[in-house]
Amino acid sequence: MELDEIQTPAIVADLAMMEHNMRKYQNYADQGGCALRPHIKTHKIPRLAQMQLDFGAKGITCAKLGEAEVMADSGIGDIFMAYPVIGPDKIRRFLDLSQTIRMICSVDSVEGASALAAAARERGITAEVRMEVDIGAHRTGVVMPRAVEMAKRIAGMPGLELSGIFGYKAMVLEGGPTLDPAAAGREEGELLGETAQRIREAGIPLRDVSAGSTPTAPYAAMAEGVNEIRPGTYIFQDAQRIVQGAASPEECCGVMKVTVVSTPEKDRAVIDAGTKALAGDSKLHAAPMFLSSYGQILGRPDLRIDRMNEEHGMIVCDGETGLHVGQPLYVIPNHICTCINLFDRIYIREHDGSLTETPVAARGRSV
Amino acid sequence: MELDEIQTPAIVADLAMMEHNMRKYQNYADQGGCALRPHIKTHKIPRLAQMQLDFGAKGITCAKLGEAEVMADSGIGDIFMAYPVIGPDKIRRFLDLSQTIRMICSVDSVEGASALAAAARERGITAEVRMEVDIGAHRTGVVMPRAVEMAKRIAGMPGLELSGIFGYKAMVLEGGPTLDPAAAGREEGELLGETAQRIREAGIPLRDVSAGSTPTAPYAAMAEGVNEIRPGTYIFQDAQRIVQGAASPEECCGVMKVTVVSTPEKDRAVIDAGTKALAGDSKLHAAPMFLSSYGQILGRPDLRIDRMNEEHGMIVCDGETGLHVGQPLYVIPNHICTCINLFDRIYIREHDGSLTETPVAARGRSV
Repeated sequence: MELDEIQTPAIVADLAMMEHNMRKYQNYADQGGCALRPHIKTHKIPRLAQMQLDFGAKGITCAKLGEAEVMADSGIGDIFMAYPVIGPDKIRRFLDLSQTIRMICSVDSVEGASALAAAARERGITAEVRMEVDIGAHRTGVVMPRAVEMAKRIAGMPGLELSGIFGYKAMVLEGGPTLDPAAAGREEGELLGETAQRIREAGIPLRDVSAGSTPTAPYAAMAEGVNEIRPGTYIFQDAQRIVQGAASPEECCGVMKVTVVSTPEKDRAVIDAGTKALAGDSKLHAAPMFLSSYGQILGRPDLRIDRMNEEHGMIVCDGETGLHVGQPLYVIPNHICTCINLFDRIYIREHDGSLTETPVAARGRSV
Repeated sequence: MELDEIQTPAIVADLAMMEHNMRKYQNYADQGGCALRPHIKTHKIPRLAQMQLDFGAKGITCAKLGEAEVMADSGIGDIFMAYPVIGPDKIRRFLDLSQTIRMICSVDSVEGASALAAAARERGITAEVRMEVDIGAHRTGVVMPRAVEMAKRIAGMPGLELSGIFGYKAMVLEGGPTLDPAAAGREEGELLGETAQRIREAGIPLRDVSAGSTPTAPYAAMAEGVNEIRPGTYIFQDAQRIVQGAASPEECCGVMKVTVVSTPEKDRAVIDAGTKALAGDSKLHAAPMFLSSYGQILGRPDLRIDRMNEEHGMIVCDGETGLHVGQPLYVIPNHICTCINLFDRIYIREHDGSLTETPVAARGRSV
């Protein structure tokens, strides 16, 4: 299949540049003396997860049990569920997996940890867990003042092995969002390292301290107490990562092919990608993104995707767009993770230029 | 299967209330002397499309050829593609369908219309088309000052039958967004009716004038020149439609079951639905929505879904949430169309209370 033949909208991912990105982040991890455990929520494709391992990753990170099941089925043997596993059915599925491969479970509550512990004891096994610490994202995670107390409670539960802690902060500093990934990464690493130190001083021998998103991971990896980073987006990169200083435009290798479907006036046009293709979660003008377009149109920095409906992307321009109906365009999405999640398949451009239709196998595994 | 057994996040749709909504909008159409042609992009489920026809709809509306193919395969025989069909592959697929069922194609450009006309002539058939008119949404559609001229050109192309015009304006008035669906619907109907009149005066015998989104359809249906309405969301309704005055909370019958996965502090909690479940396209605080939450939590108007990441929904509260880990909650999404598009299946609650797992068969048909 040739690029010309690909019907739109569709995502094309360049293998050589993915390899560049994988090598680059593996180097960040290696230089920081850290393991790399990529978050596969970005691509949800077993082939790409396997490549990340081949480049040196120690294991992978998942958010959904359904994702973990797909990845385990494909032969991956070390998975961190960086999300609370809540409810008897999900605990059962987690423990099923953990009886064949290494599984690590996030815990951040007594209720969650004790239910998992009880189910593990019933099977006569020990579940490996990491405690999530809220280092500033204010979503899941034990707040730092309670981290030592909670770690003691979890570590004291028969059926659980508390092997580490993890956190996520991304591009937030105390005081608010930032465009300084180095400062954000250092703070992320320091907060996790200090929290781990306090927990160890309480007598709990934590081994793993896991930090890092794509923009912050290179810096968090250098922090003293951190021994693992978990970036996800880096494999493709995207326009938000350019703004965050984590990627160059050339490194953005998950590109959406779209078609101009309407040119109602000289200064505007419509492409066949709206919120059901480019995703609706990249809010324009929301600090700290300062994006002026729902995606960067390759070769045409003068064009902006100004608004989207479900299947319409509205391109505007200060002058004339010069676009014609039927013209293909290539767009770097603002947030590639939520875009790929909308497609059943993407096209991987191989080294020889050929295109491989590749199922997004773990997409739709919503539970 | 019982509601208790449904793993989260998942969408449950109540059959009785869907029937209520279908009956209500069929009545709006009937009272206005209009045909109802529901847009199935909202549900993408053949069973529900068939029910809409059984309640009196004349045909359906699709945005994607893939959706139309799934619906045609399920036996539906009258489909309006309310989206430009651009490129030889899509034109071929459109004409393939139009040789077995009634297909109507949107056109809004000379390039698009002439390519379709040429391909139709090559097969020795005539393609039925409707011209889209931009009545204020400023996406696809011929701008009103050029509508007559463009209609003449399209009507003059051998291979095409220009049978009507259509437009979409939703909740926009001249001058900007509004929360007055009656005014918006009347304006929508009047602009389309007047445009059709001008085209007819130029000697083109238009038959169909199609208007209307869920909030505006009841009013557009009453406009003199309109003989068809195309609402989509009305089958489930959602929180944005409540704000727009188009639905009551009780009519919102596509509800997402979610689970509390973390309660890090007394005044906040996290549910297992973020932008990959509740969708990220409902921007909070964006006029004219005035929504304060990414979804309405049933029975708990004091709780707000304040932020979302991909798999996290952050609930906040002025006092204490009172929520516990593992607790199920039911959420009316802000925009049901983009939510359902994220799920491979939904659960339909039948009249006897049983739940039918139902594939979202046309989801993922991105091209």
